Amino acid sequence: MQDMSAALRTPGMLMLGGGSPAIIDAAVDIFQHALQKVVEDKQLFINTVCQYSDSAGDVQFRETLADYLNQKQGWNLTRDNILITSGSQSAFKMLFEYFTKGRRKIVFPLLPDYIGYGILPDEDMLGIPGELELIGQDSFRYNISARLEVNLDDVGALCISRPCNPTGGMLSDLELIRLLELAEQRGLNLILDNAYGQPLPNIVFGKHSLPWADNAIYCLSLSKLGLPGVRTGIVIGNTRLITTLAELNARQALAPGSLGPAMASVLIQNGDLDKLLDEIIKPWHISRKDQVIEFMQRHFAEQTIRYHEVDGGFFNWIYCENTKISGHELYEKFKTNRVVVVPGYAFAPGLKHDWPHLQQCFRLSTGQPLDIVERGIATISRVLQTVV
Amino acid sequence: MQDMSAALRTPGMLMLGGGSPAIIDAAVDIFQHALQKVVEDKQLFINTVCQYSDSAGDVQFRETLADYLNQKQGWNLTRDNILITSGSQSAFKMLFEYFTKGRRKIVFPLLPDYIGYGILPDEDMLGIPGELELIGQDSFRYNISARLEVNLDDVGALCISRPCNPTGGMLSDLELIRLLELAEQRGLNLILDNAYGQPLPNIVFGKHSLPWADNAIYCLSLSKLGLPGVRTGIVIGNTRLITTLAELNARQALAPGSLGPAMASVLIQNGDLDKLLDEIIKPWHISRKDQVIEFMQRHFAEQTIRYHEVDGGFFNWIYCENTKISGHELYEKFKTNRVVVVPGYAFAPGLKHDWPHLQQCFRLSTGQPLDIVERGIATISRVLQTVV
Repeated sequence: MQDMSAALRTPGMLMLGGGSPAIIDAAVDIFQHALQKVVEDKQLFINTVCQYSDSAGDVQFRETLADYLNQKQGWNLTRDNILITSGSQSAFKMLFEYFTKGRRKIVFPLLPDYIGYGILPDEDMLGIPGELELIGQDSFRYNISARLEVNLDDVGALCISRPCNPTGGMLSDLELIRLLELAEQRGLNLILDNAYGQPLPNIVFGKHSLPWADNAIYCLSLSKLGLPGVRTGIVIGNTRLITTLAELNARQALAPGSLGPAMASVLIQNGDLDKLLDEIIKPWHISRKDQVIEFMQRHFAEQTIRYHEVDGGFFNWIYCENTKISGHELYEKFKTNRVVVVPGYAFAPGLKHDWPHLQQCFRLSTGQPLDIVERGIATISRVLQTVV
Repeated sequence: MQDMSAALRTPGMLMLGGGSPAIIDAAVDIFQHALQKVVEDKQLFINTVCQYSDSAGDVQFRETLADYLNQKQGWNLTRDNILITSGSQSAFKMLFEYFTKGRRKIVFPLLPDYIGYGILPDEDMLGIPGELELIGQDSFRYNISARLEVNLDDVGALCISRPCNPTGGMLSDLELIRLLELAEQRGLNLILDNAYGQPLPNIVFGKHSLPWADNAIYCLSLSKLGLPGVRTGIVIGNTRLITTLAELNARQALAPGSLGPAMASVLIQNGDLDKLLDEIIKPWHISRKDQVIEFMQRHFAEQTIRYHEVDGGFFNWIYCENTKISGHELYEKFKTNRVVVVPGYAFAPGLKHDWPHLQQCFRLSTGQPLDIVERGIATISRVLQTVV
């Protein structure tokens, strides 16, 4: 994806490739207000900016967050269930390294899944392609394959995103509980990447919940809430595991950044976080999802193109089964026509066999201004007509 | 050091253990002012807080910093010589992993050296104990041993702190140039950890410079300037290496935090950084160093205790050659008497043989309020009288 940064700097390029959260004006105001509080309270400023936090993250923030999560989720956490890292990606690197000690693998139970998981050596990852389920004329979804169960030897942990980046699909509650139970039976942890999900930023459209499980590791982030610049990842798990991870984090990163936690504390304490989640972020994304589906239905009407059912997040995953060219050629053709997407084959951490289906898929990001998204989809439709 | 956090929370404990920078009121004012600028300029706020930076760090900041460093150091950098990370420790982890690929080692040419380097498996590190040079009645220093040169097979890179954490000593310019040349002859990079040094925070008391070298990797940080909460590490090197590291950083951390870079940009642009360095931070630390030496001369006058010559930083390294107990027992005895230091044996990354000398050493941190430092030194003196 090196050329994506170059594309970013090309004027007129319709960037539907990245994973940046939308800039929502009402949310920006709330964030500015929160940081202003940190700046103007001298003692809070000193604690936040001029001192290292606890290596597991600011103690007071972890207490505030535990209370908030308990109230929202009905969990029973203390600060010792929570570790803060400088962003989710650093957390995944640490978790993956920890769980692959002793020649064990990380298993991704439902490909396609997040491109950024592919940071381990090939032999330390195993990705299981999902089973396609076609739905109506224009949509589809992936289901966990029965092959998962027979591939759980020499495994360190399972990892899956929910909502899924790239597809926007979500494991149902029942599927999640089954996966947790399967992991439990094998003595494994399930790392659940909630970067777009519950309980925050809660870009979730259907009815889904997030039950507690002792073998679950829930990874949250402030990035998709709208704060990617403060690099705040949140890892929630049982206290034994969090204690171990906190020691690792101390060695590897000394301490996480404090500004994200300080801003989030302000947002929780003054009630702005709930306002953000319920009144700003979710309505914005529901409306955006509906608009994008309308664009797709209109522009793709005459073509054999399916998109994954959207349960959450801000991506769409497009499957064009009649394309005759490779995924890379398709990506290049889009780029020549000034649209940037992410090709489907990128979302295959641990894939061991060729999976031609992915060559016919790509991910759209839909957080850009609406006219850019629509022009992008219109261009994609035109390009796809030339390659079938 | 797990018990150090517990000690931190014990009332009345004299904490001379940590590495936190001193809280200097005039510096805090300047930092608050810089963050205020970021908060109140909406576009700057959005760029900083609500968007991911370039994976190598904000492009504009890297340009501003390159210009600043060129002007201060007479270097010839562009932004492509600079990588920003979420704190120095993350940078060291990335550098060490990169340079130990293919079963090569990181060599620490002059032990004792920073405790935090010990993040690699034992077989990937080699530390060479320094040669003691006793100076006058009460001081000493370490010099690079001739054994270094015969231990440079299967090596990936050299790494050393300057000023040294823990000793406060600094390689002279000539020693540095020799070490760079030795590395160059073997085709190696030298990682120089300038966390306390040049060009910022420049807690350097004697005449030392920092010449450019194509095989040098200079690691700076905003932490000891007084901004540890924003986790900003700065890695400077030749463009080939920085390009490679930037790709690694993108995979491992996505992007660094943006608030430290944004604050530093403000400080450079409005001239406050030079004011901070020249008029606040350096004078404060010179005065503190002189006071602490006076405390040591007074409280240790009747004892056989030496301290390392102090060229920079904010630590003192104490050597009590007549103690009859182990370093750990000494540490515990200090703690019972309500002083926390860091025992000397902790500063031995890659040490392959027992080095009894380190059992007789410990590190003091001198950034705490002055009365705490003096009471700590007085207590240490009393305790040491009981163990010789």
